[in-house]
Amino acid sequence: MQTSVVKFGGTSVGTTQKIQVIAEKLVSRKRQGESLVVVVSAMGKRTDELVGMAKAITPNPDKREMDMLLSTGEQVTIALMTMAIKSLGVKAISMTGAQARILTDTTHSKARIHNIDHENIQSHLKNDHIVVVAGFQGVTENGDITTLGRGGSDTTAVSLAAVLGANCEIYTDVDGVYTIDPRKYPKAKKLTTISYDEMLEMASLGAGVIDARAIEMGHKYKVPITIAHNTMAIAGTLIKEVSPEMEKKAVTGMSLNENIIMVSVSQLPFNSTTVAEVFKEISRHNIIVDMISLTPPIGGNVSIAFTIDSDDLNELKTVLGALKEKNPTCAFSFNEELVMLSVVGVGMVSQSGVASKVFNIFAENNIHFYQVTTSEISISYTVHRDDFSLAVEKIAEAFDL
Amino acid sequence: MQTSVVKFGGTSVGTTQKIQVIAEKLVSRKRQGESLVVVVSAMGKRTDELVGMAKAITPNPDKREMDMLLSTGEQVTIALMTMAIKSLGVKAISMTGAQARILTDTTHSKARIHNIDHENIQSHLKNDHIVVVAGFQGVTENGDITTLGRGGSDTTAVSLAAVLGANCEIYTDVDGVYTIDPRKYPKAKKLTTISYDEMLEMASLGAGVIDARAIEMGHKYKVPITIAHNTMAIAGTLIKEVSPEMEKKAVTGMSLNENIIMVSVSQLPFNSTTVAEVFKEISRHNIIVDMISLTPPIGGNVSIAFTIDSDDLNELKTVLGALKEKNPTCAFSFNEELVMLSVVGVGMVSQSGVASKVFNIFAENNIHFYQVTTSEISISYTVHRDDFSLAVEKIAEAFDL
Repeated sequence: MQTSVVKFGGTSVGTTQKIQVIAEKLVSRKRQGESLVVVVSAMGKRTDELVGMAKAITPNPDKREMDMLLSTGEQVTIALMTMAIKSLGVKAISMTGAQARILTDTTHSKARIHNIDHENIQSHLKNDHIVVVAGFQGVTENGDITTLGRGGSDTTAVSLAAVLGANCEIYTDVDGVYTIDPRKYPKAKKLTTISYDEMLEMASLGAGVIDARAIEMGHKYKVPITIAHNTMAIAGTLIKEVSPEMEKKAVTGMSLNENIIMVSVSQLPFNSTTVAEVFKEISRHNIIVDMISLTPPIGGNVSIAFTIDSDDLNELKTVLGALKEKNPTCAFSFNEELVMLSVVGVGMVSQSGVASKVFNIFAENNIHFYQVTTSEISISYTVHRDDFSLAVEKIAEAFDL
Repeated sequence: MQTSVVKFGGTSVGTTQKIQVIAEKLVSRKRQGESLVVVVSAMGKRTDELVGMAKAITPNPDKREMDMLLSTGEQVTIALMTMAIKSLGVKAISMTGAQARILTDTTHSKARIHNIDHENIQSHLKNDHIVVVAGFQGVTENGDITTLGRGGSDTTAVSLAAVLGANCEIYTDVDGVYTIDPRKYPKAKKLTTISYDEMLEMASLGAGVIDARAIEMGHKYKVPITIAHNTMAIAGTLIKEVSPEMEKKAVTGMSLNENIIMVSVSQLPFNSTTVAEVFKEISRHNIIVDMISLTPPIGGNVSIAFTIDSDDLNELKTVLGALKEKNPTCAFSFNEELVMLSVVGVGMVSQSGVASKVFNIFAENNIHFYQVTTSEISISYTVHRDDFSLAVEKIAEAFDL
């Protein structure tokens, strides 16, 4: 029997009443003969509350203990969801990440899934249970609880779908993937389908509908992923492999990221190892950098600029502090007034001219851009916050988004 | 090195600030060279909140899922406590009941500990960690999370002390064991020591300082248990084996229980199995009965009366409903206006006359009693709520409590 893994985020399970409403829908699908695995996040703002408690104890909580703390959030939801389903007369069982044998590495707070021993889940499915699994969490070989970082519940859902050979449905508070975030550009259009690559670019570039790691996983294991509204009533967007249809259009969508900081490091002594060491240290702290640019060395010194997620700024400052101790001449600056916009489309591979069309739009409208980077299917620009809306509108019009 | 297991209840760890205060005291003891295992309960009213959420979903939540839900309460506390200790520069590690390998049977909500695989805890202690263990919870052989029922964290603490060959210190919001609950009789005196048997009688009979199962466990494994105030500043009461000192006094203390209901079952057809079946069914529902009295059969029918904990009334009504279906003639009544008071003392074994002295007090003061039961070291009476204070005062005066 075809199994579906259905995932509900924190807003969707924010109250006991919302949990009951979802339970009813799951029970009705189960009664129609479906085999269901349900992945849930912590209720509403519970994760934030728990983080607040930890921060009240110490500004830098131990990461193992933070995972121990945060994992309770999803555990509450799986218990309540399972009670709700059982009270409606359908068999169900809850499983923490550890019980579901979601085995991860030991990188607390940003762990990666190594493997899922899914025999246990399979046998509960065979016994006609709805299996309710805690998202966002796993367990190390030693039995330590880990969490998968931001958007981790999506990764849980897609990974489970991959090992179970199931479809994946991600239910959220938007009704699908739009050409542009409709909260920022209300004229945006909903997409029926989107390729993994495009969705990955859009997610990596800041479109918050689904976590990038989850899409990567989906792509790797060819898991069809549907993004839809948590009412489960409206057709959503299907993320799947590229079809000839998709390639006709140069640009499928645009993603917007207001949560970036451009970091400039100047006066860094230039030799074969300094630059590499900077990025090695940054990576060791699990900070993701984007849009790296490097100026040619002048007088034995080099300048580098890159963007990071604003949330990583404190962690980055630790890295830069250590760098400054080794290289006392070097200087840093942070530009927090920039935003990034990226046009994305698998059609770009075969159609040229997207970059120059965007440059033209910027020139015509007097919009200055700070950095530009390209991938095979996307082009990203950083512009000043004040030029953001104008740039979005003009690009959307030009590419019919 | 001597290890101490120190336990803090929900009120003691009710806020992040209280957790920090306790962490400071633990760190200072650790720095003086002590080896410490800390057992904590859920913060303040968290367990009640979680129960409230479950009841909002369904009036009869599934018990496995209830344990899944409630166990998150202690997990939050162990994480926060460990962060607090580590932020003060001392090594610490948190462990859920499952991680601490507290193996129990499968009786969800009232599980019993079978065994503790303590190698893991031992090795963390050897590596100079304060080990912070979640109270109240365990795990079955299959990996299902269980909880130990009311007062379960005390049982966790004493069980750990038993397997580790440690002392046990139970910190609470009272500063020791009194001859009578000082909230009900302010003139009561604090005891320096009390025997396991006496404490067990007092706890079983309703004195809420420490759970009865924990004392039983302490007695069995000869674990010295100190009950003291969570400021850790005032000497408390040591629960230990009987000493000749203790035996000099006939009555050590009195316990009061206002949370009882007297149940009467009448017109029950009398044969060799009916009465046994009633109590078998009650026991199968894990309801504890006390003060059983049975009237001789009249006309082939028998009447039984017994007291139960008020909280078990709903569960009991289920049992009685089934009984009535089998025996349509039988009738039930519930008296919720009674209270139980019990005088306790190891000295009773060798000194007679305690019962008659109490009967005299009742007669002199016109106090009617409904039932009386005796054990080797205690005598319990049920009296009407209105006579309660007078009875307590007169008995306390007579036995110098």
